[in-house]
Amino acid sequence: MNIIKSVFLVFAFFFLDAPMWAQNPVDQNFSDKITGQDEFPETYSEISNPIPTPVHLWQNKRQNVIGWGNTDTRYKKEEPARVGDISNKVEMTGWKGERVSAQFVVSAVKSPLELSFEVSDLVHNSNKKWRIEQRTISTGFVRYVMTDELNKDKKGACGHRNAKDFDSTLVADPIDHLTKSLLIPKNSTRPGWVKIWIPQNAFPGSYTGTLKVLDGKKVIKKLRIEINVKDRKIPTPQKWRFHLDLWQNPYAAARYYQTELWSKAHFEAMEKDIQHYANAGGKSITASIMNKPWNGQTYDPFQSMVTWKRKINGQWEFGFTAFDKWVEFIIKMGVDKQINCYSMVPWRLSFEYFDEASNSMKIVETEPGEKEYEEMWGAMLTSFAAHLKEKGWFHKTYISMDERPMEVMQETIKVIKAADANFKISFAGGNHPELYEEIDDYCLSMEESFPQEVKEERKNNSKISTFYTSCAHAAPNSFTFSPPAESEWYGWYAASQGLDGYLRWAYASWVKEPLLDSRFTTWAAGDTYFVYPGGRTSIRFEKLLAGIQAYEKILILKEEFRNTNNQKALKELEEILHLFSNNNFDQTTASEVIEKAKLVINSF
Amino acid sequence: MNIIKSVFLVFAFFFLDAPMWAQNPVDQNFSDKITGQDEFPETYSEISNPIPTPVHLWQNKRQNVIGWGNTDTRYKKEEPARVGDISNKVEMTGWKGERVSAQFVVSAVKSPLELSFEVSDLVHNSNKKWRIEQRTISTGFVRYVMTDELNKDKKGACGHRNAKDFDSTLVADPIDHLTKSLLIPKNSTRPGWVKIWIPQNAFPGSYTGTLKVLDGKKVIKKLRIEINVKDRKIPTPQKWRFHLDLWQNPYAAARYYQTELWSKAHFEAMEKDIQHYANAGGKSITASIMNKPWNGQTYDPFQSMVTWKRKINGQWEFGFTAFDKWVEFIIKMGVDKQINCYSMVPWRLSFEYFDEASNSMKIVETEPGEKEYEEMWGAMLTSFAAHLKEKGWFHKTYISMDERPMEVMQETIKVIKAADANFKISFAGGNHPELYEEIDDYCLSMEESFPQEVKEERKNNSKISTFYTSCAHAAPNSFTFSPPAESEWYGWYAASQGLDGYLRWAYASWVKEPLLDSRFTTWAAGDTYFVYPGGRTSIRFEKLLAGIQAYEKILILKEEFRNTNNQKALKELEEILHLFSNNNFDQTTASEVIEKAKLVINSF
Repeated sequence: MNIIKSVFLVFAFFFLDAPMWAQNPVDQNFSDKITGQDEFPETYSEISNPIPTPVHLWQNKRQNVIGWGNTDTRYKKEEPARVGDISNKVEMTGWKGERVSAQFVVSAVKSPLELSFEVSDLVHNSNKKWRIEQRTISTGFVRYVMTDELNKDKKGACGHRNAKDFDSTLVADPIDHLTKSLLIPKNSTRPGWVKIWIPQNAFPGSYTGTLKVLDGKKVIKKLRIEINVKDRKIPTPQKWRFHLDLWQNPYAAARYYQTELWSKAHFEAMEKDIQHYANAGGKSITASIMNKPWNGQTYDPFQSMVTWKRKINGQWEFGFTAFDKWVEFIIKMGVDKQINCYSMVPWRLSFEYFDEASNSMKIVETEPGEKEYEEMWGAMLTSFAAHLKEKGWFHKTYISMDERPMEVMQETIKVIKAADANFKISFAGGNHPELYEEIDDYCLSMEESFPQEVKEERKNNSKISTFYTSCAHAAPNSFTFSPPAESEWYGWYAASQGLDGYLRWAYASWVKEPLLDSRFTTWAAGDTYFVYPGGRTSIRFEKLLAGIQAYEKILILKEEFRNTNNQKALKELEEILHLFSNNNFDQTTASEVIEKAKLVINSF
Repeated sequence: MNIIKSVFLVFAFFFLDAPMWAQNPVDQNFSDKITGQDEFPETYSEISNPIPTPVHLWQNKRQNVIGWGNTDTRYKKEEPARVGDISNKVEMTGWKGERVSAQFVVSAVKSPLELSFEVSDLVHNSNKKWRIEQRTISTGFVRYVMTDELNKDKKGACGHRNAKDFDSTLVADPIDHLTKSLLIPKNSTRPGWVKIWIPQNAFPGSYTGTLKVLDGKKVIKKLRIEINVKDRKIPTPQKWRFHLDLWQNPYAAARYYQTELWSKAHFEAMEKDIQHYANAGGKSITASIMNKPWNGQTYDPFQSMVTWKRKINGQWEFGFTAFDKWVEFIIKMGVDKQINCYSMVPWRLSFEYFDEASNSMKIVETEPGEKEYEEMWGAMLTSFAAHLKEKGWFHKTYISMDERPMEVMQETIKVIKAADANFKISFAGGNHPELYEEIDDYCLSMEESFPQEVKEERKNNSKISTFYTSCAHAAPNSFTFSPPAESEWYGWYAASQGLDGYLRWAYASWVKEPLLDSRFTTWAAGDTYFVYPGGRTSIRFEKLLAGIQAYEKILILKEEFRNTNNQKALKELEEILHLFSNNNFDQTTASEVIEKAKLVINSF
């Protein structure tokens, strides 16, 4: 622990006792040393809290508040946890192979705490030799990051934004497994996260253990953990059927970690971040095959993993070295189902290539339907197909497009099929029945839906049908201020709709300082990333994982009930899934619905 | 002749009778159709004259003024030629193989003229069968182009300039062989140019012929031409010893002619422009081996004829396709003595390359003396040397630098020699005795000079020693407003100093509309080009050629006089060359000095 930083935090805290509204968090500069600059950025200081401490909430407290809370709450930094909401014991239920999480919370009332914690092995109630070992349990402080809010009309979060136009608050989201000890100022709250990966071969039954909370070397609280392992098994993530497609951005990683693109250091740095995607059963590899498929909308624009060269004689030449390195890396990480290649119809129809004649990059502006487009992409796809076949990847490669008008899609598909009739195609965008047949991986916006018979036919033809959320959706969503349960809701929703999975356009398109401030110049905060640098996961991401696991469990249960013709159970299952067909959270919350549904699932 | 344009000219002229000073020529837009946009831009309209017609000079004239003038005068468009300065007969003297020029002038007094002219064969006085045929005589209208003036201190013409800060006038400079007929408004002057290329095998003696001046189909004047061909011969240009190094800019040609770089059309368009350089005995091929060697100072920056690529594995890869095409083309044009490659020490030490990792151009900033510089250029020069040897060009290739400090040069030379000890080096810049030994082609600014023994030693070692003029020189110079004889002066000066030749940094680095307006955002007008688009030469360039021919003739005469031990003639020659050792034009003009010297040369 860096003592200088800790002392700084204490001072910062005292300072916060004064009204702070006058201070505009937008103008606050990060320290000179950004969080990604350390070779091993094990810890870091949070951005100071723009919300003043409500001192009256702390004044009547006699002692520190320490106990288990729940995973659906983002505990506020400046407020004490309510004693009535926490307990000394957490009870969880899980299947073999499942990951289950719990959140505890510490509010420092009397004095600052040099907080750390330890978790013991969980021991089987019937036989002390049967254990869920400490090493399969991951823990981390929940950290605070700056967030904003929905657009003022509350209907969504799209469009350019100036930070000063939106309320900014610190919100609990990153799960920081690297910081081992943290100085907690007096009158502030700090949650912690415990995730248990139940071994595939665990013996069913109840396991118990302890979480010790320490102030320096002194144990200040012991909290009990109990987990009930059911005699059911969820397969390892690579075998999951949920089609998870979160777009990776290796360009953001290269910038943040200050590593050369595609260097050994770059890949090493990405390993721990991509690991979470692989462990959540990530299916799609995101590959950019031309520069700026989304017109550079992210803090770090996607460049092309394919080199484009136009020779003096007018011929095109393509290079696949970066593409190969990226795909080989991520396949090795366990994400190997499909490669989605963006984009033949980028958001700006402008294609950049190296011009041999002038030793410079040139831009050609052309669009589907034009001869130049056809020739250029014809040359590219022919060369690409040959290369993919040589690598053995052709069958899993999709030419990918998103949010383009149907007519444009149709012209584009002609060009793709002319180059190789067997090229697969993926599309995330509007609902066009004309395209159902052509699109092998079709992702609709949440409010749209495929007709039931289409979904079935697509499934029979091994075509993928999924849904996505974006800035257009007020809720459910996974902004850093969204209720965490809304990320879990996705998996349940997919199960209820008979969809194959979920897509989100940004897994880790980090902003400048993702650990400190999740706001960006467009969209609501957190839209651009799910996980944090340094292999840090987040409340949102862990909840997404919980939903995906629910999906897998539901598939397994359904199959079992059908095979055993257990109509009663099937009906119960359908009833709880029906709860998810309504995505209007005015009357209820994702958390309440999921809570109900989990009780049923766990009853089987 | 385009009648619409002619009519426009007439109207423009009437308009000019009114005071025009209020009209700011800077703000005058060119017509929508620029001169290079026609496939065969045979004619074009000049920019209108910012100087009002001094009507009183025309009022007392009774008839058109038509006659031979001299080649040292830029006749004003708005003033009538003075009757006393012109004559009906021009007498010229030349050697076999020499090109000699004459200028005639037409001032339209009574009415507009639809001007054209024809030249006859020149017939030998002794035998009518001996002829200098029409086809060896080129003619063209002298056209008017916008120019400006020296800096206000009259000491030079360097630095950025705003057109509005300088007087702008039309000046006679382009020689337009393509326009066959031109409408001359009443009260305006139009010169014409006649250039006779005396055949190598011409019979000595006097030849006479006629220039017919026509208004429409009507001959309005016959002017006599007489040329005295001496029994001396100047070799064909490729055999000339004068080291002429005018930097070509194929990038300007590609832009102006709207052709794709290095395409067939591009080379075809350049042929007629480069022809003048070849016919003036041009020795050096200008090649750019990295992007923007002069930091993009010209209207069309030099890109790299070598492609630079850094592979993901860190290795460098170079491509020479453009370089080869350019060099092959210009060698075929007859410019084949040496290839000057710019630049290892560009004006901004910033090197652009294609980055395989990101499919984009990247810049590395490094300088001589640094390890990165050494590695990068080491890789480049090693690859380049191997390629040059394969092409058989290594012995004639020079790694070229200009205007850099000596310490930088020395560090650079180390890198060059480490890559291949036999690489030749050229340098245009300051006078550094430490570098005399290392530099194979050394060009000093006009005011500097090599010690006599150094010049001799360099000559003995086949090292080239030349001089250059630039914006730093008020006179002599070759701006579009410079007295034409100053361009001729260069050749005489080189002969007087025992130098091998002359360098100028811009042969045809055209501005936006070189035919219309020779001004640029930096330096005085005309600094950036000697010749005009469409294979059009200029008064300046023809005078430069005259000087080079004088140089060749002087070399031949000196050798002859030495061989025949003709001390008297040698002394006469030295005496006239001594006139050129003073480049101060306060007391005399280049024209006067050359006139004197020519009389002597022609007397041999």
